[in-house]
Amino acid sequence: MSELGGVEQALDHRRGHINDALLAAVPVEKPERLHGAARHLLKAGGKRLRPALLLMSAESLAAVDPDSPVDYHRFPAADGGSADVLAAATSVELVQTFTLVHDDLIDDDDVRRGVPAVHRRYDDSTAILAGDVLHARAFELLLGTGASPERSMRALARLARTCAEICEGQTADIRLEERSQVTVEEYIDMIDRKTGVLFATSASLPAILLGHEDAVDPLASYGREIGRAFQIHDDLLDLTTPTETLGKQRGSDLVEGKRTLVNVHARQQGVDVDELLAEETAASVTDARIDDAVAVLEEAGSLEFARERAREFVERGKDHLDALPQNQSRRLLTDTADYLVERDY
Amino acid sequence: MSELGGVEQALDHRRGHINDALLAAVPVEKPERLHGAARHLLKAGGKRLRPALLLMSAESLAAVDPDSPVDYHRFPAADGGSADVLAAATSVELVQTFTLVHDDLIDDDDVRRGVPAVHRRYDDSTAILAGDVLHARAFELLLGTGASPERSMRALARLARTCAEICEGQTADIRLEERSQVTVEEYIDMIDRKTGVLFATSASLPAILLGHEDAVDPLASYGREIGRAFQIHDDLLDLTTPTETLGKQRGSDLVEGKRTLVNVHARQQGVDVDELLAEETAASVTDARIDDAVAVLEEAGSLEFARERAREFVERGKDHLDALPQNQSRRLLTDTADYLVERDY
Repeated sequence: MSELGGVEQALDHRRGHINDALLAAVPVEKPERLHGAARHLLKAGGKRLRPALLLMSAESLAAVDPDSPVDYHRFPAADGGSADVLAAATSVELVQTFTLVHDDLIDDDDVRRGVPAVHRRYDDSTAILAGDVLHARAFELLLGTGASPERSMRALARLARTCAEICEGQTADIRLEERSQVTVEEYIDMIDRKTGVLFATSASLPAILLGHEDAVDPLASYGREIGRAFQIHDDLLDLTTPTETLGKQRGSDLVEGKRTLVNVHARQQGVDVDELLAEETAASVTDARIDDAVAVLEEAGSLEFARERAREFVERGKDHLDALPQNQSRRLLTDTADYLVERDY
Repeated sequence: MSELGGVEQALDHRRGHINDALLAAVPVEKPERLHGAARHLLKAGGKRLRPALLLMSAESLAAVDPDSPVDYHRFPAADGGSADVLAAATSVELVQTFTLVHDDLIDDDDVRRGVPAVHRRYDDSTAILAGDVLHARAFELLLGTGASPERSMRALARLARTCAEICEGQTADIRLEERSQVTVEEYIDMIDRKTGVLFATSASLPAILLGHEDAVDPLASYGREIGRAFQIHDDLLDLTTPTETLGKQRGSDLVEGKRTLVNVHARQQGVDVDELLAEETAASVTDARIDDAVAVLEEAGSLEFARERAREFVERGKDHLDALPQNQSRRLLTDTADYLVERDY
């Protein structure tokens, strides 16, 4: 567990830089209602996993000592130039935040990161426009890293494709909810686009911006695999982590009929997943009812199945790192992969 | 009127190229629901003024004979290179379409371009995601013009800023509806962002992409001024053009309490604008009621006031073209400015 403590400390340190950069990237401007709404979730905090992964990925490419201070704004490129990797990290977190703002509205979720969702704190119209502003702002930031125009163009193209694919993943997520039979492959394809692509982009953008050509594909593959693992583990946490720690109602995926690897497997085992918390809402459901539902899923072997798949994806992700030079920062990427499926919130 | 006929013919010709490029830019892919929704308004047609302006602006820079066939995909740059100005034109129309999809949802408008709005034909969630996909796709297209990376980066930065400002303009539009007293300056500032910036970007992108540095600012200024005029004239058409020609209910701005230059002026003249069509809805309002309301606004001099302001903005826009070389294509830009405030739909 000492590696996990190290990862938490490493994430915490980088989160400080990221939080400062995020609020600077979306300043308080007129109209205040729009920009206030755009800042709302940024101010509420969050794990900042994707931008932290981007920074750690950059550090592994430059073989930076993970404990030494570095200037993320002028991070050394392979060929003597530099790029602002903190701006790139901020950009991917803005993409993540824009999709959360729109998804919360689509799912009509009340709470996010322990605060009211943007459409609850403000209104639906403001949530749509605030998401759109964050989307545009993400591109503006990635244009300003100071990397060469060729590299910036490639980074932008990757980010734009990623945004389109996340929308496809979210659409697939909604469509799968409407179907009773979903295969594991369909579920994995959905989370690849909903979650995997942004992890892949976060991990590989530094290689693009800093001119480490050979590292682009391995880092993207690493990111995609651990992104899958992260999403599966997130779905497990929804069942097992107390509401106050989660920042939203425990069991809400089950109540809302969301497809997760756990319930895709359970259904294949003959469990009538839709009946487990039938007639419950996120507001009405009790811990005891959730415990009973989780016991049924545990009995069907579905939690164990999901845990094993997440662990497999982590191992496959770590294998891709073999293509990179061995150093202390690469070790941190390895430990972070493990952390994603061992964290309890 | 022969110049206006010429403009209509010129727009019509370019519209053909643009329509083909738009549908090719958003192909039918899986998930079909998402991409079908993204294509819905593109297939419904539209005036395509912004992309046509972009093409005509490119033609004026290259001194192309307006009646000769040109290859928009390999359009000659100032220094011997080339750029795909049709891709850039498609990009600005995708931005326009993404904002329409989201705005129709925000305003809960039923009809757009004579077909059901995306959130009516599909649903709210799909409209949000389809708008997001169009937004991302606009950036992807502008990355692929084949212009030099430096020029592409500048073009992208301009487009990203434009998207953020349109959201600000839309927010301002909503906020102004909630206030009884609005000044002409506040109204102009709102339409500058809601409409002017995308016209400015459309007119100036070719100068950026094709390396005509001196023309960037004049064309942007031309675009902003005629964008203002276009918006004011559009608001006038909402009062005077039959519903079947408009493709949406005549008088809907008045029914919905939208701020327009006409009613901002009328209110300053002491007309109780909110009472004109009080208790009417777009579904209930009759032509006779709208005629009565328009007569009151006419009596207050408000239609004439708006017409004069639109005409002033057109003249100011045309003046900016003096900075460009005189040629037949520049003449078409001049005539197009006039056309924007003389068209009857």
